[in-house]
Amino acid sequence: MSKQKGTRAERELFHLFWKNNFAAIRAAGSGSTTMPAPDILAGNKNRLLAIECKSIKNNRHYFPKKEINELVEFSNIINAKPIIGMRFDNHGWFFLDVNNLKTNKNGNYTISLKLSKETGNNFEELIGKYKQLKL
Amino acid sequence: MSKQKGTRAERELFHLFWKNNFAAIRAAGSGSTTMPAPDILAGNKNRLLAIECKSIKNNRHYFPKKEINELVEFSNIINAKPIIGMRFDNHGWFFLDVNNLKTNKNGNYTISLKLSKETGNNFEELIGKYKQLKL
Repeated sequence: MSKQKGTRAERELFHLFWKNNFAAIRAAGSGSTTMPAPDILAGNKNRLLAIECKSIKNNRHYFPKKEINELVEFSNIINAKPIIGMRFDNHGWFFLDVNNLKTNKNGNYTISLKLSKETGNNFEELIGKYKQLKL
Repeated sequence: MSKQKGTRAERELFHLFWKNNFAAIRAAGSGSTTMPAPDILAGNKNRLLAIECKSIKNNRHYFPKKEINELVEFSNIINAKPIIGMRFDNHGWFFLDVNNLKTNKNGNYTISLKLSKETGNNFEELIGKYKQLKL
């Protein structure tokens, strides 16, 4: 059930990118490899985004340190921005740049709806549409 | 059987990239989407490669125009090099830049072992290792 919800969210985001002239690729099931991989890699001529997605009903989610570190490792090698894409039921998508996040004392990450609203970007900001319109 | 062989080749190439300090991602099964996607996207700070793989026993393979055009379309958007990775039994991998390929009269592409040997790169050349060593 939770996995289905995750897949649905991934596909929604995947198609959002294509509709906005980004190319996007969904990673093959994580069971097939032990190497780090984001859920979605998307980009255009100006930016490459490595995105870990989470679609939740609650207003916060805990990410283990390992999951985020792998996202950062992958992104550093391929020269992408490491992004957490949070989808909250009834609130939609927020995108947080991992480089701006603080860990808990134990090294894990907690992403709340509050934090997402305060520091996250919406989809248009993520893809630079907003900025382009202002130029 | 043929699909298994293809998956095995993809995984082999995937791990070759990681062993050589490239990040690589395998695309989720093509059944899940109608958007163009390469089999593997791999990159480091210097290059991004979108690769369509084929592992064959024979000494030539026909690629439909549509398959190659989609690879090029995807690559153009995300700013990657469109590459065909050919793995011939007993001959190993050859990598051909799609931009250097000519179509048949009908618009499709035929990639032979001969063409691969003449114009293809080996893995080290693909990732720029060879060039780095010479510098």
